[in-house]
Amino acid sequence: MSLRSLFPVLKWGRTYSRSQFGSDLMAAVIVTIMLVPQSLAYALLAGLPPEMGLYASILPLVAYAVFGTSTALAVGPVAVVSLMTAAAVGRIAAEGTADYASAAIVLAFISGLMLTGMGLLRMGFVANFLSHPVISGFITASGLIIATSQIGGLFGISTHGHAMPELLTSVVAGIGQTNLPTLAVGLVSLALLFWIRTGLKPALIKLRLPARLATLVVRAGPVMVVLLAIAAAGAFNLGARGVALVGDVPQGLPLLSVPGLSIDLVTALFFPALIISIVGFVESVSVAQTLAAKRRERIDPDQELVGLGASNLAASFGGGFPVTGGFARSVVNFDAGAATPAAGAFTAVGIAVATLLLTPYLSLLPKATLAATIIVAVLSIIDLSIFKRALGYSRPDFAAVAVTLATTLVFGVETGISAGVLVSVLIFLYRSSRPHTAIVGRVPGTEHFRNIKRHAVETHPEIVSVRIDESLYFANARFLEDCIYGLVSDDPGIRHVILMCPAVNIVDLSALESLEAINERLSGLGVTFHLSEVKGPVMDKLKGTHFIHELTGQVFLSQHQAISTLASGAPVIKRPAASV
Amino acid sequence: MSLRSLFPVLKWGRTYSRSQFGSDLMAAVIVTIMLVPQSLAYALLAGLPPEMGLYASILPLVAYAVFGTSTALAVGPVAVVSLMTAAAVGRIAAEGTADYASAAIVLAFISGLMLTGMGLLRMGFVANFLSHPVISGFITASGLIIATSQIGGLFGISTHGHAMPELLTSVVAGIGQTNLPTLAVGLVSLALLFWIRTGLKPALIKLRLPARLATLVVRAGPVMVVLLAIAAAGAFNLGARGVALVGDVPQGLPLLSVPGLSIDLVTALFFPALIISIVGFVESVSVAQTLAAKRRERIDPDQELVGLGASNLAASFGGGFPVTGGFARSVVNFDAGAATPAAGAFTAVGIAVATLLLTPYLSLLPKATLAATIIVAVLSIIDLSIFKRALGYSRPDFAAVAVTLATTLVFGVETGISAGVLVSVLIFLYRSSRPHTAIVGRVPGTEHFRNIKRHAVETHPEIVSVRIDESLYFANARFLEDCIYGLVSDDPGIRHVILMCPAVNIVDLSALESLEAINERLSGLGVTFHLSEVKGPVMDKLKGTHFIHELTGQVFLSQHQAISTLASGAPVIKRPAASV
Repeated sequence: MSLRSLFPVLKWGRTYSRSQFGSDLMAAVIVTIMLVPQSLAYALLAGLPPEMGLYASILPLVAYAVFGTSTALAVGPVAVVSLMTAAAVGRIAAEGTADYASAAIVLAFISGLMLTGMGLLRMGFVANFLSHPVISGFITASGLIIATSQIGGLFGISTHGHAMPELLTSVVAGIGQTNLPTLAVGLVSLALLFWIRTGLKPALIKLRLPARLATLVVRAGPVMVVLLAIAAAGAFNLGARGVALVGDVPQGLPLLSVPGLSIDLVTALFFPALIISIVGFVESVSVAQTLAAKRRERIDPDQELVGLGASNLAASFGGGFPVTGGFARSVVNFDAGAATPAAGAFTAVGIAVATLLLTPYLSLLPKATLAATIIVAVLSIIDLSIFKRALGYSRPDFAAVAVTLATTLVFGVETGISAGVLVSVLIFLYRSSRPHTAIVGRVPGTEHFRNIKRHAVETHPEIVSVRIDESLYFANARFLEDCIYGLVSDDPGIRHVILMCPAVNIVDLSALESLEAINERLSGLGVTFHLSEVKGPVMDKLKGTHFIHELTGQVFLSQHQAISTLASGAPVIKRPAASV
Repeated sequence: MSLRSLFPVLKWGRTYSRSQFGSDLMAAVIVTIMLVPQSLAYALLAGLPPEMGLYASILPLVAYAVFGTSTALAVGPVAVVSLMTAAAVGRIAAEGTADYASAAIVLAFISGLMLTGMGLLRMGFVANFLSHPVISGFITASGLIIATSQIGGLFGISTHGHAMPELLTSVVAGIGQTNLPTLAVGLVSLALLFWIRTGLKPALIKLRLPARLATLVVRAGPVMVVLLAIAAAGAFNLGARGVALVGDVPQGLPLLSVPGLSIDLVTALFFPALIISIVGFVESVSVAQTLAAKRRERIDPDQELVGLGASNLAASFGGGFPVTGGFARSVVNFDAGAATPAAGAFTAVGIAVATLLLTPYLSLLPKATLAATIIVAVLSIIDLSIFKRALGYSRPDFAAVAVTLATTLVFGVETGISAGVLVSVLIFLYRSSRPHTAIVGRVPGTEHFRNIKRHAVETHPEIVSVRIDESLYFANARFLEDCIYGLVSDDPGIRHVILMCPAVNIVDLSALESLEAINERLSGLGVTFHLSEVKGPVMDKLKGTHFIHELTGQVFLSQHQAISTLASGAPVIKRPAASV
C-alpha cells in the first residue's frame, strides 16, 4: 500500500488546475445550498439537535477530500444512517439528553475506526455479502419507517419508536392532539417542496429561464422553504401558537473534542456501529461506482473504506454523528461538474459559513418544515418495484427481499438487515447443497456432451457420465454420494462412472472424503470411477491426495477423450431429443 | 410420504424370517452385554443417576426398530451427546437435584420433537452444513473434554465444568485431595479395560479359543469389570474407605410418564436441543450410511430423522435422556449379524432384564470404574490425524478444524459447534466471492478453449474471452463487474467481450443487475457484450429478462461458435504455453 494510494489527494493534488478549481467551486456552492436543509433535517431524524447535522457536514467532507477516491461523492448525514443512529442510540439514552448526543458522537467514532481498520486490512469484500435484494428491501423499509416517523412532526404530536408497530400505535394514539397551526406549516412546506421537485423547473422554463439557471433555482428551493418558514414563524409568532420550533442553538462552530469513551458504551454500540458501517459503505460505494462509471473512472473500494472511516472519525471529533456518501447530493455534485474531491472540501467551507450565518435564525425554524423535508427526501428511496422484479426473476430472490422488508418494518433496522443477510446466505447454501446434475451423452458427430434430457445424444450401456454443476464442498458432498450410489444401484450393467467436472471450482476436504468413499464403494461393486474436465487449480489440489492415488479409473483432460478411451468398440445407444 | 416409508417396520416385518430372528437375537445378546456398562457410564457423564442410562437404552431402541431404516444402527446414550446434555442442563439446575434430571428428560423431549418435525418436513439436508472438518474437530475436542472430566472420578476428587479451562483448574485445585483407594480402583479398572480392548483377544486365540468365541469374551469384558468392581467393593468394604459408590437406585423398571414442561424450561433448552439434535443426527446418519454401504443397502436420511426423533420422545417418556446412534455399538451389532431393526427391540428386552437383575447390586458399583469405562470408550473418538490431513490439503479446511477444536475446548460444545459452522460458511462465501477467472484462447486446430496462462492458444486482438469459474451471485457480483471493467480499461483495442459460462449454475438477481450494468457500460464504450456456453437451466431463467432483451451482443451455444462468428477473417495472436 503506497502513500499515494492511502492519500489519493497526493495524486490528484499535484495536477490540480485552475479550470478544475472553477468547476469544483461551482459544484460546492450548489451542494452547500442543498446540504443545509438536509443536514438540519437528518439531525432531527437522528433525534439530535439540528446544529449537529451542520457539524457533521463540515470536517467529514474535508477528511473525505483527503482520503476518498471518488471525484463526485458527497458525504454527510443521510436518511437511512440517521434512522439507524436513532435506533442504536435510543436504546442507551433518552432523546434530548446530553448522553444521547454524546452516544451518537461515540457511534461515529467506533464506526470510523471500524471502517478505517477494514480499509487498511483490504476488507472491502465484506460489502459483497449484502445482496441487491437485501439492500433494496432494507432501504425501502427504512424509507417507509422514516416517512412514518415524521408524521408526528407534521401533525405536531409526539410519536416514538424505530419500527412500524410502535410508530403506528403512537401516531394513532396521538392524532387527536394534532396542533392545527403545525399541521398547516407542515402541509404548506410539504406542498412547496413537492412542487419545487416536480413543477418548478417546467414553470421556470416556460418563463424562458435558461435550463441551467432553472436547475440552480430548483436546487436552492428547499433552503428557500427553510428561510420562508423561519420568516413565517417570526411574522406570525408561531411559537406561541404551539408550533414546535428548533429553539436556541449554540452560536458559531464547535471546538474539536475527543469523544468520551467507556467500555459499557463501546460494548453496547459495537454491533450497531458494525451494521451502520457496512450499510453506509455499501450505499456509498455503489453511488461512487455508478458515478465513476459514467466518467470512465475507477474507484478503489478498500480505499473508500478508509475515506469513509476518516470521515466518521472527523465527524466524531467535530461534534457530529455517523455520515456516509449520499445518493442525491452526489448526483447533484456530479451534475454540477465537481472535478476532484476538492469540491467536497469547498462544500465544507460553504457549510461552515452557512452555519455561522444561519444559527442566529435557526431557533425560529418550525420542526414541521424539517419533517416535510425528510418526507420528500425519502420518497425517492422507497422502491417497491424490486418486489416485482424479484418475483418475476426467482423465488429465492423474492424471499430475500420480502424477509428483509418485513423484518425491518416489524422489528427495526438491525434485526432487519441481519435477517436479510442470514436468509440470503441460507438460500445460497441450500441451492448449492442440491446442485444441478445431468447425465450426459455425446452430440453425434461432435466432441460436445450434453444433458440426455435436453438433447439428442449417444451413450454407452456400460458407461454413465454425470456432470455436476457446482463446486464440491461440505454442503453438497453427501448429495454427490447419494446421486452416484443411486445411479449405480438403479442400473447393475454399469461398469464405468465418469464424473465430469467442468463446473467444479473447489473440492473441499469434506467433498474429497466423499470422493474417496465413492471410489471405495464403486470399487467394491466392480465399477471403475473416472474424472473428466477437471480444472487446473482443482487438479493441482487433488494431485497429492490419497484419493488420486487410490482412484480405480483415470483423470481425463476432456470428456471426449474419456469416452474415446473407455467406449472404443462398445455398443452405442442413440437417444432422441426429449421434448422438455 | 406413504405409511410404509413412515413405518419401515411394515416393510421388513412382512418378510421377517426365522433365520433373521436367529441372527437378530444373537446380535441383541452381544449388544446388551456391551451396552449395560456404557449406559451406566454415559448417565454418569451426563451428571445423571446411572439407572437413567439403562432407561435410555430400553424404549428408544423399540421406537427405532419401528421407525428407523438402518438394519444395524444401535441407538442409546452416547458420549458426545451426554456431554452436551450435561452442558445444557448444568446451566439450569444443580447436578444431583430432581430439577436436573427432569430437565434432561425435557431436553430429550424437545430434541425428539425437533428431529421428528425435521424428518416429516424432509429437512435431512440441514446435516449437510456440518462439514467433515467441523464434525471431526468437534468430536475430537469433545473426546478430550470428556476424558479430562473423568479424571476427577478416577482420583476421587470433585471437578466441575464442561470446557477445558474450568475443568483443568478444578483438577489442579483438587489433586491434593486424591483418595488413594479410589485411584487404585480407577487405575485397575482402566488397566483391565485397556487390556480387554487390546491384549485379551490375542491371548485367548493363543489359548486356542475360536476367534468368534474370543470376540464374544472381549465384548463381555467391560460388564465383567463392572461385576468385578461390585464384588471388590463388597468384599473390601470400599465405601467405608472413601471410594464413591453409585449408591441406592430405584428397583425395577420406570413407569411411563409425561415430561413436566414449562415455557421457561423450553426456552432455555431450545438452542441446546437444536444443536444436540443436529449433531446427534449427523453422527448417527454417518454411522448408518457407512454400515449400509457395506451391505449395499440404502438408508433414508429424512426417515432417519423420524426414527431418532421417535427414539428421543421414547427416551423422555421412559425417564431417559437424549440418545442417538452410537458408532461402536452399531459396529458390534453389525458384526454380530443383526439382520433387521428387530435386533434393537430384542436388545431393549435384554437391557430391561439386565436392569431388573442388576439394580439390586448397582449400589456397590464404584464410580471410578465407570469413569475408567468412559475414558477407554472416548479414546477411540479422539482423532488428531484430521489436523494433518486438513493442513496437507487446504488452509481453509485446516482453519475450520482448528477453530472448531479450539473454540470447543475453550468455550464448550455449543459455542464450539456454532463457531465451526460459522467459520466454514464464511470461508466458503469468501472463496466463492473471489472466483477463479481465466482469459481463454483456442487450442490450435481444436474446438477447445483454455486458460492463456496455462496453455499454448490462439486469441484475437479485438476479442477478449473470460471464463468465470463460479455461479454468479450476490457475493461475487461486484467482483465480476470489477474484473470486466478492468480488462476493458486495460486494453482500449477490445471490441468484443465474451463471458464464457460453463461453470455458472445460478445467476441470482444481484448478479443479473451486475450483468445489466456491464452491458450498459460496455455499450457506452462501444464494446459488444456476449455470453457463451450458458447452461440450460440458467438460460431458462435469463430468457424473460430485461438483460437478454438489451444485450448488445449474442448468446452462443459454444465458445467455438462465438469465436467463429466474431473473429472470421480477424488477425490471430499465437501465444506460447506459459511455464507456470
